[in-house]
Amino acid sequence: MPNYSIPSDVFFRAAEQFPTPFHLYDEKGIRGTAQQVNAAFTWQPDFKEYFAVKALPNPQILNILRQEGCGTDCSSETELLMAERCGFSGKEIMFSANAMPAREFELARRLGAYINLDDISDIDLLRDHGGIPETVCVRYNTGGTFKMNGNQIMGNPGEAKYGWTREQLTPGLKRLKELGARRFGLHAFLASNMTDPGYYPALAGILFSAAAELEKEAGLPCAFINLSGGIGIPYTRDVPPVDIRRVGQDVRGEYERVFGSPGAGKPGIKTELGRYMTGPHGFVVTRAVHEKKIYKDYIGVDACAVQLIRPAMYGAYHEISVAGKEDAPRDHLYDVTGSLCENNDKFAIDRMLPEIHPGDLLVIHDAGAHAFAMGYQYNGRLRTAEILYTRDGAFRLIRRAETPEDYFATLVW
Amino acid sequence: MPNYSIPSDVFFRAAEQFPTPFHLYDEKGIRGTAQQVNAAFTWQPDFKEYFAVKALPNPQILNILRQEGCGTDCSSETELLMAERCGFSGKEIMFSANAMPAREFELARRLGAYINLDDISDIDLLRDHGGIPETVCVRYNTGGTFKMNGNQIMGNPGEAKYGWTREQLTPGLKRLKELGARRFGLHAFLASNMTDPGYYPALAGILFSAAAELEKEAGLPCAFINLSGGIGIPYTRDVPPVDIRRVGQDVRGEYERVFGSPGAGKPGIKTELGRYMTGPHGFVVTRAVHEKKIYKDYIGVDACAVQLIRPAMYGAYHEISVAGKEDAPRDHLYDVTGSLCENNDKFAIDRMLPEIHPGDLLVIHDAGAHAFAMGYQYNGRLRTAEILYTRDGAFRLIRRAETPEDYFATLVW
Repeated sequence: MPNYSIPSDVFFRAAEQFPTPFHLYDEKGIRGTAQQVNAAFTWQPDFKEYFAVKALPNPQILNILRQEGCGTDCSSETELLMAERCGFSGKEIMFSANAMPAREFELARRLGAYINLDDISDIDLLRDHGGIPETVCVRYNTGGTFKMNGNQIMGNPGEAKYGWTREQLTPGLKRLKELGARRFGLHAFLASNMTDPGYYPALAGILFSAAAELEKEAGLPCAFINLSGGIGIPYTRDVPPVDIRRVGQDVRGEYERVFGSPGAGKPGIKTELGRYMTGPHGFVVTRAVHEKKIYKDYIGVDACAVQLIRPAMYGAYHEISVAGKEDAPRDHLYDVTGSLCENNDKFAIDRMLPEIHPGDLLVIHDAGAHAFAMGYQYNGRLRTAEILYTRDGAFRLIRRAETPEDYFATLVW
Repeated sequence: MPNYSIPSDVFFRAAEQFPTPFHLYDEKGIRGTAQQVNAAFTWQPDFKEYFAVKALPNPQILNILRQEGCGTDCSSETELLMAERCGFSGKEIMFSANAMPAREFELARRLGAYINLDDISDIDLLRDHGGIPETVCVRYNTGGTFKMNGNQIMGNPGEAKYGWTREQLTPGLKRLKELGARRFGLHAFLASNMTDPGYYPALAGILFSAAAELEKEAGLPCAFINLSGGIGIPYTRDVPPVDIRRVGQDVRGEYERVFGSPGAGKPGIKTELGRYMTGPHGFVVTRAVHEKKIYKDYIGVDACAVQLIRPAMYGAYHEISVAGKEDAPRDHLYDVTGSLCENNDKFAIDRMLPEIHPGDLLVIHDAGAHAFAMGYQYNGRLRTAEILYTRDGAFRLIRRAETPEDYFATLVW
């Protein structure tokens, strides 16, 4: 369920200091989640979470996660450069992308990052651009559909553009061995935003077994299993949050079934969580600026899809609260809209909320991942500031709001 | 049907001069369409097309359209500032937005723009921020569903956040009159991307009748009818393009039925076309960089949803051609994918195309509107250049590609 751990007083104080709308991130919450993830995998001496930068590409957030022992999962040259500038290097960086330009392989190699090859044809590309490293990761696409809980379809890997088929893995790893690789990593992603605690264990079971087979078939030891992302957060109140401790224990069960006790020479475990790490700890703080009654009742706010595109793009649900009215009866039916000339620019449709008046401060929850990161500038609307609510209770600007001059920067007048 | 009027030679030459991917716009095509729109409405002495800046917010494009007699339809402060910097002023600017901050009204008033009020409550906002102008436009929401061609539902105005109800218009216009307005404009938008030539005439019929009634009920003369946007382009080959000449004639028929012959003291006509003006005259030029065969055959290109988000966001179809292979048999089944770590980053799914090899130049059609304009920077992927293919056959950079430093510009390290 959405995170109501931040009292409305915090949002009021932040909105006194910074003009709405802005993204607010809770440092304590982010550190807490990172600590819980690490605690869930203490049984595995070679565990590391590589935060998926694409979820929240802000250096201050990356620094916080680095202090908690996390690395970065980068998907482009720009993300690699950001990680480098933050001080991440070598095996603190995972590079996972697809159809990327050759120069990005070169940069990843220069940084000493782990590289996750999306396709068998990437072997030659990497050989020619940066060279094959001692440890190289490959992305496995299990094909077909991914089922859990008595054959329920949870994902469609066979329709996804990512990864290698099982048949490609053995000859591919043999080829990598010929080209100098000494160990391999194995990665797969089967489904997105999974709040079922059985997801990682199910994925782990598949990857551990495949890795054990591949070690024999290719004659190459497995360095690590990369469970990728996929652990989700509950956007609605009726879904319980993932019990990450249990996830860690159940992954351990699968591990010991295949590899026995963890230890030297045995595969490590890597994760690339994004949404799970920061999603619940970010908020879009916005002010009601307009109240409109036509065929429906609308509340217009000063944020729009620029700050959070998920409702417009996916029809995604995000919890909305009204600061100071958390306990008021939700007895008014509203559409909550942004200012874009695009009718899908609505944060909520037919939502029961407390009565709202212009000036009220609205908090859109679960905006700590894939929120600012997916912001566009449609209609010439500008991206706004990111504020860190620090663990000592202060507010720190970690990204300034854009100005029209930013918007105009690349133009030739 | 998509525009195949640019020979592949042009794309090859452009790609020699500029690194892929980039947006290429055909100046001749844009001017041609503007001229056709103006020709369709020569019967109306007070006609002006206000190009919807949100479709293609580039000053060089605005300058071209200004030379062809068009104004700008702006939806935000930034778009107003761009129009101002391009030299548009006064009645060359229409300001149409919703739930916008008060300061945007002030800016629009300072520029002398026409202001289109989205809601009855905007009357007070405008009075207090900039003041009520002599001519003020109001946006009418007809409610319910919009039907054409024997009761087929074409749009759902009643579900849209825009505009005033019919019941609000009369008291609202009376109030505006009391506050100093001398004439009104009437605007409505009923459906998007309509390729049915009957759309504008149907809309015009509704607006002309309503305006005539409102003139009497409110005692305020109608200055103009704003037919807004809504005329579409055929993204697929089976749909014929809109016959704009016929549209103009049929709108004239509706006009004369209600107002008689156009002339002094009679309402003018304004349009806010965006997609129709530039959509078919823009292309994303991208190179195949990757060929992948797993459970399906994939062609990875160096463009991604950053350059064109419509397929990912709406499942929209965009025609794709392979430069130099326009006449080759379309005998290969591909998904054409971008490099984002987002499975919906596909320009085509299960599309029959000529055989494609890495290095081939692909042209994604109908990317002259809502393409660059909706670009984000997800995964740290950067927005690329915009090139004008000038009417004298040269290529002119009208927006440079972003660099990582642009991406980092607002960060606090």
